[in-house]
Amino acid sequence: MANIQGKTNAGQASFSSIGRSIPRVEARAKVTGRAEYVHNLRLPGMLYGKVHRSTLAHGRIRSIDTSAARAMPGVYAVYTAADIMKLVPDPHYGPAFHDQPVLAIDKVRHVGEPVALVLAADIHVAEAAAQSIIVDYEELPAVFDEIEAMTSKAVVHEVLKPAGTFPDLKHLKDKRDTNIALDFRLRRGDAQKAFAEADHVFEHTFRTQQVLHVPLEPFVTVADPQPNRLDIHTASQSPSFVRIEIARLLGWPESRVRVRVPYLGGGFGAKLYIKIEALTAIAALLAGRPVKIALTMEEQFYQITKHAATLRIKSAVTRDGKITARECEVWWNGGAYADIGPRVTQKSGFTAPGPYDIDHVAIDSYALYTNLPAAGALRGFGIPQLVWGYESHTDMIARALNIDPLAFRRKNILKNGRPQATGTIMQDAGIEKVLERLAERMQWEKPFDHGQGSIRRGRGMAIGFKASISPTTSVAIVNISADGSVMVYCGTVDMGQGSDTAMAQFAAEALGVPVETVTVVHPDTDVTPYDMATLGSRSTYHMGHAVKLAAEDARDKLMQLAQEVGLSAETAPIPDIFRKKYGMQAGNVVGVGSYIPTYASPDAQGQTTNATPFWMIGATGAEVEVDTETGEFKITRLVNLVDVGRPVNPAIVETQISGATLMQLGFTLYERMDFDAGQCTNASLADYKIPGIRDVPAVMENEAVDMVQQSGPFGAKGVGESGTFGVSPAIASAIDDAVGVRLTGLPLTAEAVYRGLRANAGKPLED
Amino acid sequence: MANIQGKTNAGQASFSSIGRSIPRVEARAKVTGRAEYVHNLRLPGMLYGKVHRSTLAHGRIRSIDTSAARAMPGVYAVYTAADIMKLVPDPHYGPAFHDQPVLAIDKVRHVGEPVALVLAADIHVAEAAAQSIIVDYEELPAVFDEIEAMTSKAVVHEVLKPAGTFPDLKHLKDKRDTNIALDFRLRRGDAQKAFAEADHVFEHTFRTQQVLHVPLEPFVTVADPQPNRLDIHTASQSPSFVRIEIARLLGWPESRVRVRVPYLGGGFGAKLYIKIEALTAIAALLAGRPVKIALTMEEQFYQITKHAATLRIKSAVTRDGKITARECEVWWNGGAYADIGPRVTQKSGFTAPGPYDIDHVAIDSYALYTNLPAAGALRGFGIPQLVWGYESHTDMIARALNIDPLAFRRKNILKNGRPQATGTIMQDAGIEKVLERLAERMQWEKPFDHGQGSIRRGRGMAIGFKASISPTTSVAIVNISADGSVMVYCGTVDMGQGSDTAMAQFAAEALGVPVETVTVVHPDTDVTPYDMATLGSRSTYHMGHAVKLAAEDARDKLMQLAQEVGLSAETAPIPDIFRKKYGMQAGNVVGVGSYIPTYASPDAQGQTTNATPFWMIGATGAEVEVDTETGEFKITRLVNLVDVGRPVNPAIVETQISGATLMQLGFTLYERMDFDAGQCTNASLADYKIPGIRDVPAVMENEAVDMVQQSGPFGAKGVGESGTFGVSPAIASAIDDAVGVRLTGLPLTAEAVYRGLRANAGKPLED
Repeated sequence: MANIQGKTNAGQASFSSIGRSIPRVEARAKVTGRAEYVHNLRLPGMLYGKVHRSTLAHGRIRSIDTSAARAMPGVYAVYTAADIMKLVPDPHYGPAFHDQPVLAIDKVRHVGEPVALVLAADIHVAEAAAQSIIVDYEELPAVFDEIEAMTSKAVVHEVLKPAGTFPDLKHLKDKRDTNIALDFRLRRGDAQKAFAEADHVFEHTFRTQQVLHVPLEPFVTVADPQPNRLDIHTASQSPSFVRIEIARLLGWPESRVRVRVPYLGGGFGAKLYIKIEALTAIAALLAGRPVKIALTMEEQFYQITKHAATLRIKSAVTRDGKITARECEVWWNGGAYADIGPRVTQKSGFTAPGPYDIDHVAIDSYALYTNLPAAGALRGFGIPQLVWGYESHTDMIARALNIDPLAFRRKNILKNGRPQATGTIMQDAGIEKVLERLAERMQWEKPFDHGQGSIRRGRGMAIGFKASISPTTSVAIVNISADGSVMVYCGTVDMGQGSDTAMAQFAAEALGVPVETVTVVHPDTDVTPYDMATLGSRSTYHMGHAVKLAAEDARDKLMQLAQEVGLSAETAPIPDIFRKKYGMQAGNVVGVGSYIPTYASPDAQGQTTNATPFWMIGATGAEVEVDTETGEFKITRLVNLVDVGRPVNPAIVETQISGATLMQLGFTLYERMDFDAGQCTNASLADYKIPGIRDVPAVMENEAVDMVQQSGPFGAKGVGESGTFGVSPAIASAIDDAVGVRLTGLPLTAEAVYRGLRANAGKPLED
Repeated sequence: MANIQGKTNAGQASFSSIGRSIPRVEARAKVTGRAEYVHNLRLPGMLYGKVHRSTLAHGRIRSIDTSAARAMPGVYAVYTAADIMKLVPDPHYGPAFHDQPVLAIDKVRHVGEPVALVLAADIHVAEAAAQSIIVDYEELPAVFDEIEAMTSKAVVHEVLKPAGTFPDLKHLKDKRDTNIALDFRLRRGDAQKAFAEADHVFEHTFRTQQVLHVPLEPFVTVADPQPNRLDIHTASQSPSFVRIEIARLLGWPESRVRVRVPYLGGGFGAKLYIKIEALTAIAALLAGRPVKIALTMEEQFYQITKHAATLRIKSAVTRDGKITARECEVWWNGGAYADIGPRVTQKSGFTAPGPYDIDHVAIDSYALYTNLPAAGALRGFGIPQLVWGYESHTDMIARALNIDPLAFRRKNILKNGRPQATGTIMQDAGIEKVLERLAERMQWEKPFDHGQGSIRRGRGMAIGFKASISPTTSVAIVNISADGSVMVYCGTVDMGQGSDTAMAQFAAEALGVPVETVTVVHPDTDVTPYDMATLGSRSTYHMGHAVKLAAEDARDKLMQLAQEVGLSAETAPIPDIFRKKYGMQAGNVVGVGSYIPTYASPDAQGQTTNATPFWMIGATGAEVEVDTETGEFKITRLVNLVDVGRPVNPAIVETQISGATLMQLGFTLYERMDFDAGQCTNASLADYKIPGIRDVPAVMENEAVDMVQQSGPFGAKGVGESGTFGVSPAIASAIDDAVGVRLTGLPLTAEAVYRGLRANAGKPLED
């Protein structure tokens, strides 16, 4: 892989810590095996919990027979919903809807839903006992497809229970007996009129599959009851949310719940909001003992998945290739519980027309309940699914109109200063710059050799964009010790993305101290102040701002201290200031920073003057070779261009781009959860293929374009997801360019290409 | 025991949290056995350390033979000073002098000094191996007595190595070949002239013995090397100091050292500054493994003791009982290493004339090295030893002049507005009030039945005072969550004194929230900001101020937040303010408080305008019955009066007074470390008697007098030590009052009384 070519904007001041590729602060801990994970945690007296799961996609529970489990030697306790409700009368949780029971109450809504929990000191005993539980169900009609769910008589939830957590999530409060958890609607201009007057109208439908996040560290939580308090150690991306939600369930003040996250072995959205924490917490309180629940890799397939989705997209285009109107309908298959799906529906919804300058837009985006495992956030938060659709569509139009795909995009691209579909005026978005730089690296305007004989070559490009999650809050504390060394307290979870390193760099830069003297404390809600969550590439921007503000506050206080004792803060070493003030090596200077970006709620038509504090832009160019006899194809070159603002740590930014790209490559080429009557039939890494080192394209180039996010901390913005955006449609368009086969469903397989080749040739599948 | 009668000053505002006897916040954790102590901590891969100790009081090390230990199966490593010096070239530590080697280098200076360390996974293997080590010594002349140490040719340290930590500790930098580590000198008026002109001159000498603190939890430290960092879990009263000193020894920035203290099983001054932490830390780094060193009860007798002391006190008194001049000489037997002894010498030194209004004062107070185990801080920091002397002396003068001891004290008592020996004008010191309330409770002015026959009755009173340690710094953080619950971060160690509860009350009072919603985080230098140490009854005042300031800062920020969103902070519930600002249950308000009292350094004569931020006053009245045939005596009534300012938590204040009193009762009646050629001969709780429940006097009354410390947080001040002050001399004077035997050395024993009775009668010891 090429090194990232991150450069700071020449017009800006120079930096001492920002922009340096210092090694990750946790590198040594990880390579020496000393990094702490919740999986390694064993507490005295700790019990292991094993979940008995539903075998039915939709059913009423007639009875649960736990007698064999209870009688098994070594079993400490067996809990069902009835036990849970002794402690928590209404044990439903969830970030958007309070719809998910801690253990199934009366009904099960998907295969794998937790129905009972066994606790034992020996995990094998717990497992055997969990398997011995017998549940008698009355089977109910089920619905699995998102389109069918719109009208199905099989209703997953009779009543909708919005959590009221997110201020601008408009819930369908009055609806009953529907599977539509949320519908997002955006109207700009008059799309209907524009379609009526159009030279050309194109309409296509695209589908994406249900996939899994596959973090290397599976879900695990340890809950440890303390007198009057509850300690929770959890593999979570959102310790603050877990604390608030557990406190709410228990009816306790937040200060009685402590949530700690050491290192996290990957998250990708799987470990967001609240997952197995509620069950573990309540079980520990019922048992009066520490309880650990650690899911197996197989169990993860039932815990949280990523939405399958269907996108119908329709465009009105002028003769010379100007898009005048676009209509998008998106159906998100949310599974049995809403999790954060409604917010995916809304937050991705308003970018569904893509990064194009279109006057007339109509968007409808639906969050749907089905009888599949719940779907939630995943790297990109719905955007890669949308980009897959709108960039395939864009390419199909260009080819249909015989316009070069680059020229077509140039004609329609959304420029800074122009309104996006929400009406928000674009600022600091490197859409054009990224597209042009991609064209340059791909040498798009030079002749391309399409090959001959049975091996044909093709190329494709795609560009996507994403808004940041807003409004959300981050708080940070920066503490300067008397020897001048610095502690940063922030709730950002380092899950491999390098946030500890970045936060140390922000603090060092703001204070003007060497980054080596800065230590970043891991999330612990007793210690680190509130942070909404580590998600949506928000930490660099939001927490970066909070850390910068906290460091500036500390710096101001230190200067005040220096003034008090008659020293110059500019020239006096920090230890001298403390020593002069406190008589010895003593004291601290503590600064606090709290950041929430400005935001304007959208109106009923989805219009707002301020949809996001910043935009993320990612583009991919792909070159492929396709075997016309077998449909097999390989990616010979993948170029990923991203606008990350000013790169805080260019080496880490490069790993973020390549990591995102490879993850999306898995969803593009290999990954798909298969279901049979709601039962996942490939729930293991033996059957569910994720990319390995041999699947990395021979030539892969990652680059952060030269940009500065003016509103960002030191010009930076988020980078965790942008690499995912363009991968799938770029490859699909390259295949089409090579052999004229357009695939509209993921993953892209040799079989699908082969079928297309045979259909194009008017031949049956087999000779 | 009677309940404490703490009342708040009627003239003050009323309080909602301060002054309430809420249960200790840790009560449930302790009674259920769930409270965390370092002793319980086991880490994966942890090694146990056992120390091989010197068998000689003073000697040069010719050779150390560790071959048998190294060959023992299961031994991981054996370290001597040579190994330590590979990592730390100058491994000397100490708060006042850098005189104490991590392991003995070339010389040993007391019996029990650590010479070598064995590490093994099995503590019994480590112990056997430590015993197998053979050290060849060249014996050197030793000195044990503090008076002899003044002139002895046996010199413990050839060179003095002041640490430079404390700004106003005047070290004898140029002295060599002396055992005087520090001499404190105070001169006020012209004592020599006053003595020459005196009607009466009285001179007496008093001695106190070397004693042990005996915390229920012996010393224990676990050091856990992390990549680039070192985690230390330690039973310490001063986590900030441990962090600074370990960082200094290693040459690391403070931010790379993390020191945590969970609950502490008693401290009493034993666990101050740095003890076994340096050895444990360096051993763990050498071994690359977590290391635990936990001392046995016996080993504690070699780790830290309390000074034996000799006090010569001489007073000039007018015919009618006015003290015109006082001369004090104090010799503190500091043992082989200075520890904090020099500061005891200085900080107690200036109160040696007692709480009396005396125009002409001369004080010399010496910190002396001897070949005994090092002596350091103990509850009262030298004051109980001084009060023992000056109140016995006061009583002896009164009796000699035939003046009632109460009347004599009334005539000479130091009143507010008058200068103390340092010249500092007394303020808010309840000396007179405490004395008068004691007289009232004792019904001193009513006739007292002295008994007859072989059982005689007597009574005595004594009053002492103490300055607070100054200048020292405390920093606190107060964090308000979005649901209105509160976290307090402070480095005060809850070692049984109830500081967590008090700090919660301070924060609750300042914020106007229920104390139940406040959680106090335990010391963790990664988390809780700097605090000098938990010592000298300073936490209520210093940290109380810091917490109050932090809470006020948070309250101000919350009001600002309320204003921003158009709510009234007075009427709007806290969660509403957050919700309106952040759109959801999100955010924190973080306040910071830093407190250092004003202070003026004493001049060369010990004079200063501001010696202390507040004064602590304690008085005791004792009634005894003495058997004139055997010398046996029992305490029939003990009345303890203390000025605590406004009591924060009256129930806890009461336990502090009774605890202090009973501890001093042990030193008064039972406890004494016996030595033979520097070897402690009663180093176990079987041989070293501490008070048990049966030793509690039949009638014991504890009372906080009605006072307000105007400069204190909500009128409060420290209470941890004042109960110790008057116990010893009150009992000695009561014995004298009963049978005419005046004891001048501690402990007071039946044998000593018997000897006095026989001597008074002119009889030999045995008939």
